[in-house]
Amino acid sequence: MARCKSDARRGGPWRGACVNPFSRLVAQRSASGRPEDSGTHIERWPGRTDINRSENIARSPRRPLSASLQVLLDYLPTRKTVNSSAHAYLTLNQVRTMAASASTRKPVLSLESINPAVLDVHYAVRGELALKAVAYEEQLHDPVKAKELPFDKVVTANIGNPQQKGLNQRPITFWRQVISLLENPALFQDHLDVISKIYPADVIARAKTLYGEIGSVGAYTHSKGIPAIRKKVAAFIEKRDGHPANPEHIFLTAGASAGVSQILGLVLKPGEGCMIPIPQYPLYTATLAYIHAKPVPYYLDEATGWSTSTEGLIQGVNKAKADGIKVKALAIINPGNPTGGVLSRESMEKVVQLCYDEGIVLLADEVYQRNIFDPKDRPFISFKEVVRSMPKEVANSVELVSFHSISKGVSGECGRRGGYFELTNIAEDVVEQIYKMASVTLCPPVTGQVGVDLLVDPPKPGDASYDQWLAETTLTHDNLRDRSKLMSERFNQLPNMSCQPADGAMYLFPQIKIPERAIEEAKKRGKAPDVMYTLDLLDATGICSVAGSGFGQEAGTYHLRVTALCPGVEDYVGKIEKFHKEWIAKWA
Amino acid sequence: MARCKSDARRGGPWRGACVNPFSRLVAQRSASGRPEDSGTHIERWPGRTDINRSENIARSPRRPLSASLQVLLDYLPTRKTVNSSAHAYLTLNQVRTMAASASTRKPVLSLESINPAVLDVHYAVRGELALKAVAYEEQLHDPVKAKELPFDKVVTANIGNPQQKGLNQRPITFWRQVISLLENPALFQDHLDVISKIYPADVIARAKTLYGEIGSVGAYTHSKGIPAIRKKVAAFIEKRDGHPANPEHIFLTAGASAGVSQILGLVLKPGEGCMIPIPQYPLYTATLAYIHAKPVPYYLDEATGWSTSTEGLIQGVNKAKADGIKVKALAIINPGNPTGGVLSRESMEKVVQLCYDEGIVLLADEVYQRNIFDPKDRPFISFKEVVRSMPKEVANSVELVSFHSISKGVSGECGRRGGYFELTNIAEDVVEQIYKMASVTLCPPVTGQVGVDLLVDPPKPGDASYDQWLAETTLTHDNLRDRSKLMSERFNQLPNMSCQPADGAMYLFPQIKIPERAIEEAKKRGKAPDVMYTLDLLDATGICSVAGSGFGQEAGTYHLRVTALCPGVEDYVGKIEKFHKEWIAKWA
Repeated sequence: MARCKSDARRGGPWRGACVNPFSRLVAQRSASGRPEDSGTHIERWPGRTDINRSENIARSPRRPLSASLQVLLDYLPTRKTVNSSAHAYLTLNQVRTMAASASTRKPVLSLESINPAVLDVHYAVRGELALKAVAYEEQLHDPVKAKELPFDKVVTANIGNPQQKGLNQRPITFWRQVISLLENPALFQDHLDVISKIYPADVIARAKTLYGEIGSVGAYTHSKGIPAIRKKVAAFIEKRDGHPANPEHIFLTAGASAGVSQILGLVLKPGEGCMIPIPQYPLYTATLAYIHAKPVPYYLDEATGWSTSTEGLIQGVNKAKADGIKVKALAIINPGNPTGGVLSRESMEKVVQLCYDEGIVLLADEVYQRNIFDPKDRPFISFKEVVRSMPKEVANSVELVSFHSISKGVSGECGRRGGYFELTNIAEDVVEQIYKMASVTLCPPVTGQVGVDLLVDPPKPGDASYDQWLAETTLTHDNLRDRSKLMSERFNQLPNMSCQPADGAMYLFPQIKIPERAIEEAKKRGKAPDVMYTLDLLDATGICSVAGSGFGQEAGTYHLRVTALCPGVEDYVGKIEKFHKEWIAKWA
Repeated sequence: MARCKSDARRGGPWRGACVNPFSRLVAQRSASGRPEDSGTHIERWPGRTDINRSENIARSPRRPLSASLQVLLDYLPTRKTVNSSAHAYLTLNQVRTMAASASTRKPVLSLESINPAVLDVHYAVRGELALKAVAYEEQLHDPVKAKELPFDKVVTANIGNPQQKGLNQRPITFWRQVISLLENPALFQDHLDVISKIYPADVIARAKTLYGEIGSVGAYTHSKGIPAIRKKVAAFIEKRDGHPANPEHIFLTAGASAGVSQILGLVLKPGEGCMIPIPQYPLYTATLAYIHAKPVPYYLDEATGWSTSTEGLIQGVNKAKADGIKVKALAIINPGNPTGGVLSRESMEKVVQLCYDEGIVLLADEVYQRNIFDPKDRPFISFKEVVRSMPKEVANSVELVSFHSISKGVSGECGRRGGYFELTNIAEDVVEQIYKMASVTLCPPVTGQVGVDLLVDPPKPGDASYDQWLAETTLTHDNLRDRSKLMSERFNQLPNMSCQPADGAMYLFPQIKIPERAIEEAKKRGKAPDVMYTLDLLDATGICSVAGSGFGQEAGTYHLRVTALCPGVEDYVGKIEKFHKEWIAKWA
């Protein structure tokens, strides 16, 4: 697509118009009988002068039409794919069209020319539906246009965003007090008397300690994260699991997503496979597409609360092998997203054994570890603990990366972008490579790192903030559990809907039995049937959910992911119920 | 590398020891005459029992030696590469070694097995030297070991990290006051009377406005960034350039690095080329290596203050073409890093014209736009302004992505991770793809986004914070300019050193004429000569710099990048001078 190369080589003035060798291609296309050849172009001609990238040299004051045409015609004899008879049939209109095309510099970037891996990336959580929801939200701000809508607010039930406007999860006071002091240390350095009246003593003490370790939260930190905070993460893991943790194998990250992307990009060569649960959080498929790696699905069993079965895993591995894909990693989300399932120790041991047997790196996404609804019957167990509790040859060899985050749990600090991953049984020279890659992104956001400190080391009994911290976090936890329970119960009473109760996390993933007529209608609209359902739900109620097809599901089944974060039950579940009944009745 | 597949299929208990088909490979290697075959392995045997991944089935209580050997021997007849005569020569020691190897599960991840693109990534700014600096810093914390060092502190002059401990750049008070209120809105909601005594009125007003727009800084925002802040960025750009800006073409980012990586990964297909200046900030080469794209160097001219010459650019393009590389993008850093050069309008127009002529996307890294030392003679001009001021066919077609950041300038808020990029002349369907990719990373850190608001809309004359803001930012700016000037003057007085004065940014990139004997010594040590210089500088003074080879330089020339951020002139420049004179004398 070189243009005016000779001019550029001569260093000539850029103001001179020039003809692009690329115009040869354009001319070929024009002469090839495609629609561009038709005389109708001439009719649209006058309207095109002011459109970007459609300046035409034929109209340029600096180069008269005849000269431009001459240049074009000069190219014609050299064209290889246009034979002389085609040449003979060129009309004046066609030549004019060619003259116009010749000067239309095509953009370098188009869907054809960008990295094709980008086109392969799909991310339903914030796709078409989310865009439509944003448009509705804007419409609601306009008093006149708002009246056209059958709802007065948009409920974004598509993302686990606990602190978003309109929801009732408030930030943990202890967190925000500590961070506000780190943001402006003058508050405790110069105004301690004033601040002491507002903030509890443990808040001020924590801020002073962190300030001593970190200094300004506006400075870059160690690329792995602040050493003192990594030590505290190690202590947290040791206490949780009863096995040692090494701060040098802990990396703080800008949320779990950043860590997952980084690790997938390092572990997998292009073409290698990563097992992912179906349904799954679409970060995995999106990242794999981007790095040219292959998702290898394994199906969770809906009938048994979305459990992970050894059979499903082995089927996945064997299918990949049959397809010639080397399975290098296995991603598992526990508690599950979107399913809410919590794995039993037995299931986890089988997963670990499979990784040992097959030589697979285990990636454990454990960001919902604090969102456990029935800790007695279905406690959270970390994969680190399971790996380390297995016989020595397994315990000391299965390579594991465990992810955690401040975005979920009872903190819900998504916007801060904080989290960590821990490396288990990873060779030291590979750890160094991970460190190098972390260095390129400089460091995670510092107050996100501080969030990790507050996550792993909350106020203790006796601390001035303890009672408030306990009350706030218990409320958030119980609200989530109760809403989740109530929602699955009510969903299960609806016609054509069944819903596995969640053991944890913050979503429900009910199955919808979509009537045949609706499936046919969806086909006509060019949508997946569950996408049609979610679009209709949004149009009718302002509730933005995500269709199951965005997460993957068994062929012929349809689901919906909704968060169990909601403003009020009737405003949310009641609206879904009403819509669902009407929609099913309409298409039955 | 399938292990125990049959066991796994049967769902058998994972506690049973098993033999890996992989052992065949190990056995082949052992029989192939490599050192593993030697009897010395047997001597090391007893010491290996507790080593990770070296559990041996021969010693397993669950499977006696003879059975293990039998399994191994069962495999032997099926081995394809070991002929029967080799088989005949197996000694008992060799078989024992094989038995041990069979149970040594090799880690899945090694330097050979990870994504090779990761190995190609180099990032000198935080490499070997930086690691050594960290080690020295730890040593200084130990009162006894600290005495072994010839310095009492480490000066990290390797990264532009204005707010790091030990430097004298304080955060802008206005920024930190506003953000502390957003972190804890209770301060203005419940304690306005108290806070009003500490914080100026405009701080409280700004926090309230932002809180109204954003809500909690702990919630995810729009993936492009908070709409109200993008509108303010557009207004800032319009005012700066005198050309319209569209908020929908502005994306807030987690610093400029995150934006650059995202854009490079979208623009370039694997194998395509991106022109990068030499010397360059190594983010570019690192990212290109990771995405399998090719760096196409163009050399800046040291003699003319590191200017960008059309000749250098065209040489780069032609070289790439000769090598069969399609040049798709051109990265340019203005003001320059590490050079400090500021481009003239004439140079910029030539760059834009080249992009037009050759069909190249222009990536303008303008993060140092506020660090301009002589605004009259060498003002900052944005590429957006230059593109839009060119004749219509160029102005409306050259595709440009411009990057800015809160990390540099006079704010220096690197740890917050905030910035933005603006898209100019990018096709709408490509903008949508960029938006999709931004969605996968969810959203930039929210207080990083707030930082962008404060960057583009600082206090105005008449605002309560204005005088303090002006005094603080002027001090930071003038300090940087004065130190930069003084440093280049003093460097130029040293033997074997010459230094182009910087027009902007926050670095100096002096050239060192390294004596032949030192070059020979470096060869012996297996280091680049300038890397040896920087290591020796660190060992002698505690000053951590970066060798020019980390940025790229003309063959046979050697440089050093140091920041013009420093605690005190004598403690820093004085030490470099003393070291340099001695070092040159030693090797002359």
